[in-house]
Amino acid sequence: LVQALQIVSRAVANKPQTPVLSGIHLTARKDTLELEATDYEIGIVCRIAADIEQEGESVVTGRYLQEVSRNLPDNEIAFSQTAEEPTIHITSGAANFTLLGMASRDFPGVRKIEQKMEFHIQSDVLRNLIRKTVFACSTDEARPVFTGCLMEIAGETVKMVATNTHRLSIKEEKIREFSGEVQQSIIPARVLGELLHTLSTEAPYDVVVSCNYNDISFSFENIFLTSRLIEGQYPDYNRVIPTEFRTNVRMKRADFTAAVGRVSLIARSSDYNVMRLEFSRDQVHISSNNPEIGNAEEVVSAAIDGPDLVIAFNATYVNDVLKNMDSDEFCLYMNESLRPAEIREVEGDEAFFYVITPVRTH
Amino acid sequence: LVQALQIVSRAVANKPQTPVLSGIHLTARKDTLELEATDYEIGIVCRIAADIEQEGESVVTGRYLQEVSRNLPDNEIAFSQTAEEPTIHITSGAANFTLLGMASRDFPGVRKIEQKMEFHIQSDVLRNLIRKTVFACSTDEARPVFTGCLMEIAGETVKMVATNTHRLSIKEEKIREFSGEVQQSIIPARVLGELLHTLSTEAPYDVVVSCNYNDISFSFENIFLTSRLIEGQYPDYNRVIPTEFRTNVRMKRADFTAAVGRVSLIARSSDYNVMRLEFSRDQVHISSNNPEIGNAEEVVSAAIDGPDLVIAFNATYVNDVLKNMDSDEFCLYMNESLRPAEIREVEGDEAFFYVITPVRTH
Repeated sequence: LVQALQIVSRAVANKPQTPVLSGIHLTARKDTLELEATDYEIGIVCRIAADIEQEGESVVTGRYLQEVSRNLPDNEIAFSQTAEEPTIHITSGAANFTLLGMASRDFPGVRKIEQKMEFHIQSDVLRNLIRKTVFACSTDEARPVFTGCLMEIAGETVKMVATNTHRLSIKEEKIREFSGEVQQSIIPARVLGELLHTLSTEAPYDVVVSCNYNDISFSFENIFLTSRLIEGQYPDYNRVIPTEFRTNVRMKRADFTAAVGRVSLIARSSDYNVMRLEFSRDQVHISSNNPEIGNAEEVVSAAIDGPDLVIAFNATYVNDVLKNMDSDEFCLYMNESLRPAEIREVEGDEAFFYVITPVRTH
Repeated sequence: LVQALQIVSRAVANKPQTPVLSGIHLTARKDTLELEATDYEIGIVCRIAADIEQEGESVVTGRYLQEVSRNLPDNEIAFSQTAEEPTIHITSGAANFTLLGMASRDFPGVRKIEQKMEFHIQSDVLRNLIRKTVFACSTDEARPVFTGCLMEIAGETVKMVATNTHRLSIKEEKIREFSGEVQQSIIPARVLGELLHTLSTEAPYDVVVSCNYNDISFSFENIFLTSRLIEGQYPDYNRVIPTEFRTNVRMKRADFTAAVGRVSLIARSSDYNVMRLEFSRDQVHISSNNPEIGNAEEVVSAAIDGPDLVIAFNATYVNDVLKNMDSDEFCLYMNESLRPAEIREVEGDEAFFYVITPVRTH
């Protein structure tokens, strides 16, 4: 119960438009307690086994239901309700709680989806798909399409794309049992974040992804999670992906990440978080300068193939991708100082790459 | 160095009155690096062993010095400075940092105290003295004397007193090597909180406490911590301490604490956080009611000596003392429903007690 409440609580509205949206809807039916919450943008349903003595439903404020349940003294918890009022009684050991309820007829319910498209994917594969892209989304609500990940289906492949227009992350995975019409969907970063938290990292299981033009749902184990899709036209991201490179650099991910982390202590306080990279003679000289704080520099060894190059990036954009990679080494592919570069894992995930636009240094 | 920076950082001003107060003052002399920070209210000096090649001093922004030091790649760190500028160079492994400094002549320095009074106390004893009182202080700046703990010396005993006028906590301990004139001092709760964090919980060591009319200092190991005292007259707290009781109740601390914690989930959302206790027939019936949320009740066994009683407290004030006690059992001594009650450890710390004013229930 405590785990289920934790999961559905993620869909409870923080600032509810109507009071009932601060609630969790409980349905006792057959041998199952169904918990349901929605804030109109996302909705989560979670089912757990229960001994039902009398069927019924109620809506209780999510916050108190969660806090009380988490603190009860006994492993067994009994919920009861009289027919006249929505109030719910909770008993566990010597503890008795009464929580005021809300009329369940006012609860909007989590929309079931009449799907136009459906496929199956393994939970660990879906986690990777999200983890390697969602961080690259924008948080600027002025351009909604960039606050979500584009999901494209082609044959037996799903491609997830995220960009904030300064960096672009693309990851592909295989899917199974695809049916319906191919469509593009823009999934809000928020729901993907909730999904990352909810998909357990233990033994993988099957996830069914269904969507129509307006909504998407993820169904797995005892959980059903649904979200509105973002409306709008996703721009053609393919035209910013470079097709050839002049300078290719291979580096140890851990060493470079640690150095970038240190140098960005200085860089991150400036407006553009600028980190300068100078590739020459089997090493990269990483530096940053902030007139109000000071400067930082560090040297890391690098296998350089191609002409020497000086280039500058937003250090955060580099950090973000490095920490979501899995390989020991990675490659940075570049052209000139102001043309987009690409980052890929070495001997790792070949279906994942990252395009990053350099920044101008003065 | 990282540990020392963490300690002195507690005295770095969050909103510095002058830029130099955002800095940590470094002094390299003989075989010691001295770190010093102050926000005019409290000051901390910490000394660590160092190989000094050239003596000197500098002031560097505390935040960056701490972040950079914490992230350096090598165990050894070298600091250097040219004579012309306050800028400091930091080298560790392949990493090089330059942090802008500030003129050390502008740094106010931590005031040394010409003491009127001094005593010695063991670090673990001092920790207990603080831990069992400081939580009872007020946070209301309108009445400054209650935002600190009163420290009274009498013979070989120190008494620490804290109150917010609704509850009062008193703890005594023995001191050693007292010298000077007896005086009352009101020590800001904030500095006592910093002291609790700074006094390690490992093998006890000696702490020298010195004070005059305006300042107090704590000197231990490689650390010197000083604070202004709070001005004003502390009221006579002795007159609120009851001298006799009618109903004495003995309870298991863990059981009662858990039940109070649960019942206060409902109580704490109301204005006065009211928890009702009904003592009768070897048990206490704990309950709370919030018209907007619901109610809670729980029964815990209790050894009651004296007439039955119904009394109500601010649940937080009860919780606060219970979690700072050490004994398995505790006693609650009461008179009538609206007269102050007292809480003491059973077979535990006899030099500690807590007075709490009940609240009226409707």
